[in-house]
Amino acid sequence: MLIGKTCRLGRRVRTYSVQHLARLFTSSGNMAKSKFEYVRAFETDDTCLRNCYIVVRLDGRNFHKFAAQHKFTKPNDDRALGLMGRSACSVMEELEDITIAYGQSDEFSFVFKRTSTWFKRRASKLMTHVASQFSSSFVFYWKEFFGEQPLLYPPGFDGRVILYPSNRNLRDYLCWRQADCHINNLYNTVFWTLVQKGGLTTAQAEDRLKGTLAADKNEILFAEFDINYNNEAALHRKGTTLIWEKRDETVTKCMKLLNKEEKDVPVTRSRRRVEAYHCDIIGDKFWEEHPDILEDDNC
Amino acid sequence: MLIGKTCRLGRRVRTYSVQHLARLFTSSGNMAKSKFEYVRAFETDDTCLRNCYIVVRLDGRNFHKFAAQHKFTKPNDDRALGLMGRSACSVMEELEDITIAYGQSDEFSFVFKRTSTWFKRRASKLMTHVASQFSSSFVFYWKEFFGEQPLLYPPGFDGRVILYPSNRNLRDYLCWRQADCHINNLYNTVFWTLVQKGGLTTAQAEDRLKGTLAADKNEILFAEFDINYNNEAALHRKGTTLIWEKRDETVTKCMKLLNKEEKDVPVTRSRRRVEAYHCDIIGDKFWEEHPDILEDDNC
Amino acid sequence: MLIGKTCRLGRRVRTYSVQHLARLFTSSGNMAKSKFEYVRAFETDDTCLRNCYIVVRLDGRNFHKFAAQHKFTKPNDDRALGLMGRSACSVMEELEDITIAYGQSDEFSFVFKRTSTWFKRRASKLMTHVASQFSSSFVFYWKEFFGEQPLLYPPGFDGRVILYPSNRNLRDYLCWRQADCHINNLYNTVFWTLVQKGGLTTAQAEDRLKGTLAADKNEILFAEFDINYNNEAALHRKGTTLIWEKRDETVTKCMKLLNKEEKDVPVTRSRRRVEAYHCDIIGDKFWEEHPDILEDDNC
Amino acid sequence: MLIGKTCRLGRRVRTYSVQHLARLFTSSGNMAKSKFEYVRAFETDDTCLRNCYIVVRLDGRNFHKFAAQHKFTKPNDDRALGLMGRSACSVMEELEDITIAYGQSDEFSFVFKRTSTWFKRRASKLMTHVASQFSSSFVFYWKEFFGEQPLLYPPGFDGRVILYPSNRNLRDYLCWRQADCHINNLYNTVFWTLVQKGGLTTAQAEDRLKGTLAADKNEILFAEFDINYNNEAALHRKGTTLIWEKRDETVTKCMKLLNKEEKDVPVTRSRRRVEAYHCDIIGDKFWEEHPDILEDDNC
Repeated sequence: MLIGKTCRLGRRVRTYSVQHLARLFTSSGNMAKSKFEYVRAFETDDTCLRNCYIVVRLDGRNFHKFAAQHKFTKPNDDRALGLMGRSACSVMEELEDITIAYGQSDEFSFVFKRTSTWFKRRASKLMTHVASQFSSSFVFYWKEFFGEQPLLYPPGFDGRVILYPSNRNLRDYLCWRQADCHINNLYNTVFWTLVQKGGLTTAQAEDRLKGTLAADKNEILFAEFDINYNNEAALHRKGTTLIWEKRDETVTKCMKLLNKEEKDVPVTRSRRRVEAYHCDIIGDKFWEEHPDILEDDNC
Repeated sequence: MLIGKTCRLGRRVRTYSVQHLARLFTSSGNMAKSKFEYVRAFETDDTCLRNCYIVVRLDGRNFHKFAAQHKFTKPNDDRALGLMGRSACSVMEELEDITIAYGQSDEFSFVFKRTSTWFKRRASKLMTHVASQFSSSFVFYWKEFFGEQPLLYPPGFDGRVILYPSNRNLRDYLCWRQADCHINNLYNTVFWTLVQKGGLTTAQAEDRLKGTLAADKNEILFAEFDINYNNEAALHRKGTTLIWEKRDETVTKCMKLLNKEEKDVPVTRSRRRVEAYHCDIIGDKFWEEHPDILEDDNC
Repeated sequence: MLIGKTCRLGRRVRTYSVQHLARLFTSSGNMAKSKFEYVRAFETDDTCLRNCYIVVRLDGRNFHKFAAQHKFTKPNDDRALGLMGRSACSVMEELEDITIAYGQSDEFSFVFKRTSTWFKRRASKLMTHVASQFSSSFVFYWKEFFGEQPLLYPPGFDGRVILYPSNRNLRDYLCWRQADCHINNLYNTVFWTLVQKGGLTTAQAEDRLKGTLAADKNEILFAEFDINYNNEAALHRKGTTLIWEKRDETVTKCMKLLNKEEKDVPVTRSRRRVEAYHCDIIGDKFWEEHPDILEDDNC
Repeated sequence: MLIGKTCRLGRRVRTYSVQHLARLFTSSGNMAKSKFEYVRAFETDDTCLRNCYIVVRLDGRNFHKFAAQHKFTKPNDDRALGLMGRSACSVMEELEDITIAYGQSDEFSFVFKRTSTWFKRRASKLMTHVASQFSSSFVFYWKEFFGEQPLLYPPGFDGRVILYPSNRNLRDYLCWRQADCHINNLYNTVFWTLVQKGGLTTAQAEDRLKGTLAADKNEILFAEFDINYNNEAALHRKGTTLIWEKRDETVTKCMKLLNKEEKDVPVTRSRRRVEAYHCDIIGDKFWEEHPDILEDDNC
């Protein structure tokens, strides 16, 4: 990397008269700029259809390799999952029209409210900003979760935008992701138990699990290793759901009294903050308990 | 931020029989997943038109504030410009189909070759990956350029994709950005000279420059401050252009000789690496000296 | 127009040996075709977002001139409105997933049901087929409405696709078009009454109406010409709404009796057919009376 | 079809006072319209990328059935091909930015010049207008080609838009269509010769041709039926290419002479008109002879 190096072309700096400079800069300046500005017309409009939920989903790039190089524990690394959640939280705090986010493994989905006008609903702006904020946060907060273990290189995530016209569609999207979390985590839990506690090689474990159903996997855990899958950590089984919640906070504020003295008094105020849940979002319960996340369909 | 907190819903863990579990997991597992999978059909195809250059441009979010909070020097902060270039270089090394990148101020443009099939030319993947890699690199390499001065929060960039069908269009795009660099830098140079050396307030400086042409600004610099704008740093006047270059490198390699002894011998090999230029890319010279960047129009 | 003329290049037909022909045709035949087939990859996917109503609206091209040249009566020509409706009906019969169509003046809107998979929901196919079928029908049925008055040239219509995610949005779209019908028809009715019965020039009539509200226009009609606008033809005030309705039809069918004789017997069967309404579709009444047009929002 | 029928809802016309009417119409008029106008924001921008050729291709809908019902001759019906060409010509005369059109069988492609700003390059407008004009022309000119044989029903065409960034791409697109014409016509020619002159059933003919190459097909024609395929009509082998050509026309014009007498004098003027060719457009010859069709790539 040679940033800062003088370029060969730039080296031959001639001395100009002021008159010459004037001409030169006029022609290569504003006038030239307006001559080139036609290229702006090649930009296309990618406004998201109104009245639809906008979902941005990020996926880690080559995270299999990233996990290996950073010695993530198997089948789940709580530091990595915590960092993913922390980065997602940073995204939500930056882009306030996100009402709910859901993450598992190396992916995170962010849902903008259907009436959002953030970035004029331009898909490219929304997804790049989410990808950017998430990625810079991932590096920024690394130390909070991995302590002295160094980050070896800057990781990458890619993203996409998907629109959902109805509450049912949006909920089914989130169900899909949580069902995916469940399937993968059940598999990974049995697989690594067979390897770590059962002494199988990874090839043997893979072979053993070929063609098994969920019930079979649960039975292997229960019968052979006395593990009740349902007692496994909710974080691993259910993933992470982030939503905004109003909290009453008591803060100390300096108030001027009637007699003009100043005094510290406790003041209660309501603040929105991001809260994390590791619970089922497939059933109705979660949605009944948080009725503000979804907006009326027929609007 | 409550990442890791157990959720209220998740707390009430009931004990299931294995039979019950089997049913439960089957229904909320693979079968449920396939029931929800219809939501994938809502994804849209955003493949970039073939045989066009794909440009991804990133712009800093709220970098005016970011610069102030991190005490960037005015009118240009070489540490910040270096970090921008370093991050762009990291993007190029990660996405090899980028043939040229150009940056100035808080923006950077990346040009994918017109025949690229990276990510199947999917616009969303291309721009989010660029935005992500750039942002994580910006935090990752911060220390290299800012030393002990801490990064206060993770910065954000947004991006967009623009397609250019011809070499002329692409060159004019890059001309447009370099002309913009020139106009802004000339203005900023005079403005901050008037403030820093001329003792004007920022309001006075703004007033002084209202309605001036490039020639007028050059004359202020030359006549009042004895500054020949053309002698200012090329990095500031021309921005940063990154391209791939082949270099012969001599490395020492351990070779087995005929008599089975091992010996360290010097070996020359050709390697592609990213090089930075701070030169004019508006004229033909640069393009004539690097004929590999553009591809034939009529292909 | 020289369709059928032999082209200069084609004239010089040489006589080939069969061997030569074989080579020639192989190279300019299948092999050549596959060599060129890469151009298919330039087609883009324009699938309409799922679970949204797909509206195709057609507008007459230069119908002001078309109306003048074909001596349409002012302010409304019932023959032309009838022909528009007939052509729209032809479109609905051809594309069965259209559940409702609304037309006024020289425009017609067609609504595909939100779950339609017609043409795989490809926007270009949907709108071109509608535009094509409407236009060929317009010429085909001309005689039914204009009798011996000849059609002077083939008319053109252009179209567009708009997606609506909710029932409210779709109904508001139709309200928008019917409100437009009302505003224009009220204006045109007063305008042409002032000209045809009031003896004003068109310039004077335009002047007279400048700045008037709906109430003023109604009063002009009522006070000066004894016309109650509400008694004007519903076709003009409300436009044309086409929907599918089930009707019981009694048809005579030839049946084979037990004794193997054949006999004509009356058979009642239910048939879907397009029906035209000229009524208010802004209020709830129409929608309550035809509950099948809209689908459930939360699906 | 009940166009013109009074609708049930519309029948119950109440008599209003003028005051009531005023209120009513104000609320259901302009104000109401503006309340609904938000639905316009759901329209999306589908501007075609600048500096690309815009191709609109139309295909007949169910033309197999259409051909059978209208007793088209096999393998080619010159009346139908003539009507297709006539309709395409009508499209070109209406949309002047089309520089070349190519048709074969029941399809026709129209090429807009790369710098066209017709309809602001909006894809939906371009393709629907082409589809509409073509279809109305097809019915309008039917009689010119089919005489007293009636058109049984209005036919439909669907269309699509494809963008090509370079001259090579555009030419390859046209090559692809002409190669397709060749392959299909050679097959159809042999197939129907086997049936019509060879006395085979269609199933036998199909069987006979299974797996044959172009050379084999030529040999069947030549050896068994003494037909040199190359002597078949160019219209069938090469399809129809329409371009604009300048022609000098001599018209008689009434001129006022110096002595104020009027006199008819012959005047020569240059006029653009659409010309049809049935020649090879795969090779360079056609393009060299008509250099104005393609524009410079590097613009």
